[in-house]
Amino acid sequence: MTIPFDRLKAFIQEALTRLGLPDHDAATVATLMAEADLQGSDGHGVSRLPQYARRIKAGGFNVRPDIRVVQEHASTALVNGDNGMGHLIMKRAAEIAIEKARTTGIAWVNSQFSNHAGPASLYATMPLKHDMIGLYFAVGNANHLPPWGGLDLLLSTNPIAVAIPSGDEKPIVLDMATTVAAYGKVKTKALRGEMMPEGWMIDREGKPLTDPKRAEEGMLLPLGGMEAGYKGYGLAVIIGLLAGTLGGAAMGSDVIDFNHDDDSVTNTGQAIAAINVAAFGDIAVFKAAVDALVRDLRGSARMPGVERIFVPGERSQQTREARARDGIPIAPALMRGLDQVADELGMTRLG
Amino acid sequence: MTIPFDRLKAFIQEALTRLGLPDHDAATVATLMAEADLQGSDGHGVSRLPQYARRIKAGGFNVRPDIRVVQEHASTALVNGDNGMGHLIMKRAAEIAIEKARTTGIAWVNSQFSNHAGPASLYATMPLKHDMIGLYFAVGNANHLPPWGGLDLLLSTNPIAVAIPSGDEKPIVLDMATTVAAYGKVKTKALRGEMMPEGWMIDREGKPLTDPKRAEEGMLLPLGGMEAGYKGYGLAVIIGLLAGTLGGAAMGSDVIDFNHDDDSVTNTGQAIAAINVAAFGDIAVFKAAVDALVRDLRGSARMPGVERIFVPGERSQQTREARARDGIPIAPALMRGLDQVADELGMTRLG
Repeated sequence: MTIPFDRLKAFIQEALTRLGLPDHDAATVATLMAEADLQGSDGHGVSRLPQYARRIKAGGFNVRPDIRVVQEHASTALVNGDNGMGHLIMKRAAEIAIEKARTTGIAWVNSQFSNHAGPASLYATMPLKHDMIGLYFAVGNANHLPPWGGLDLLLSTNPIAVAIPSGDEKPIVLDMATTVAAYGKVKTKALRGEMMPEGWMIDREGKPLTDPKRAEEGMLLPLGGMEAGYKGYGLAVIIGLLAGTLGGAAMGSDVIDFNHDDDSVTNTGQAIAAINVAAFGDIAVFKAAVDALVRDLRGSARMPGVERIFVPGERSQQTREARARDGIPIAPALMRGLDQVADELGMTRLG
Repeated sequence: MTIPFDRLKAFIQEALTRLGLPDHDAATVATLMAEADLQGSDGHGVSRLPQYARRIKAGGFNVRPDIRVVQEHASTALVNGDNGMGHLIMKRAAEIAIEKARTTGIAWVNSQFSNHAGPASLYATMPLKHDMIGLYFAVGNANHLPPWGGLDLLLSTNPIAVAIPSGDEKPIVLDMATTVAAYGKVKTKALRGEMMPEGWMIDREGKPLTDPKRAEEGMLLPLGGMEAGYKGYGLAVIIGLLAGTLGGAAMGSDVIDFNHDDDSVTNTGQAIAAINVAAFGDIAVFKAAVDALVRDLRGSARMPGVERIFVPGERSQQTREARARDGIPIAPALMRGLDQVADELGMTRLG
């Protein structure tokens, strides 16, 4: 079953309003969640609504947060999210970063007492329309990654996203977990009743784990896999320090597994930076160089069997166009979860 | 054969002075090159001296550059390196970033008309003693990486380094190429007469390439390998845009292969950022949190057969301590190259 973007957004918005969010905040979160689905970030959009609803009911999210800047310099800020929904906090953080970068050239804003905010690229792309580069780092909301060679789940999939403005071409947008696969993808496989490919997860003996229903027995493999996974491990550590520790947020053993805990304050941390391209030279020259690079990459000779070369963000852009036209597919298991949310809140079902 | 740090540094310094660098610049470059060897970055230290000497003689480096800031905002700068040695330019860039970050909280400095500057961690660690986090990005000096699925060598190993201040523990320092292996490691294998493991490079049919002497026929695999190499490809693109394109430096098809070209201006670009930890909270609290994380990671239960868990930068730190004590090993093929440099410059051999 597929659902039009506007319908999905309205459904999420109504649910969040009934759950107690102010109208304006419900609209903001609903828009960002539906945008996540539109661009194909299936593990980070409406699929999280049942969990969010549970957490709000359990008192694990503050639906009327006092989101405020608690430390500030010319090019930095620390935002205390007062345990509100992460979408609200990181949208505010992005706005602050963009405003500061206008005059100083770059700004970097950390959050503390934030929460899961959906896909990293939602925020990294916010500076684009101001002709700025966006960088986003986050501490994931559950630890599924041990240190390289270890067994204790001390790290999350800590993602990075970077968005680069372009001219005639689409912006370049990288959005990646520092594990081979994001845990949201594992959850999506489980919802769809599909198996995972080898290389996403291993069990505690180091053997491949491919059944997503057994995910809790296993560990994600860091980017680089069995061969160079120390690099993905290193990235997860560094991103966690930048997004979490720097802002006084949780990192490492402090991280709350919000898949199994509906009421503790997660003290999630994220960081967003905006770099003002104009501070380094002519914007048109920069955009033309980005366009030229995109065309060079796309025009490269191809390996046997490869039909097309993609630039980071291009698949997501294609998904966005297809889903804007055809609607957003909702898997049966997810739809059942959303029906349950609707029933519990006394509202019309989505399907 | 092993050489003490001071002797190695003095040798490099004398060579660079004889090649025409001012005394102070020769000392700066020699220190950074010897530091590279000390920390085990064998592909980026004295092993590059024969190539640097060749390039200086061919007029490919400007030995008396006018290194200057050509664009500046409160938290950003663009440094034109006037085709000087990259070490001089990026040391200056790091100093500017640190100075600006003192008051604004963060600063980001790009270079243009720079050159190969050695290992990324040399510069990322410079902010540490000012209680700042360092981030460094560089465009590599030869393209050995195609876009994901492609054959044209449009990208380099574009490395990232991040250094995080700590308290009682050693700083956390990540320094990684966005390929499975850095090209410097391939060159080191060739110098040592060793084969490469499968997974570092492939040939144009996609088959493993393990003989480093055949490296020029092949392509490096991006981080993630055959399974998730689109992530390493994405990182290489993004880092190239941040380090190169943003500062008006070469990226993509503009990159000069300085292994096969001794006289063209490379217009190499790098970027360095310094983040002032004090702008986000109490430095002692931050350092204690970093120390606690290091101990948690190190203390993790281990996979069968794993003797010890390392934190990023720890192996390099161990190498530094061992080589400070025992000297820096110089492989026979490299020593022959250094002897030739010494003979050509009429100076005492190193060995």
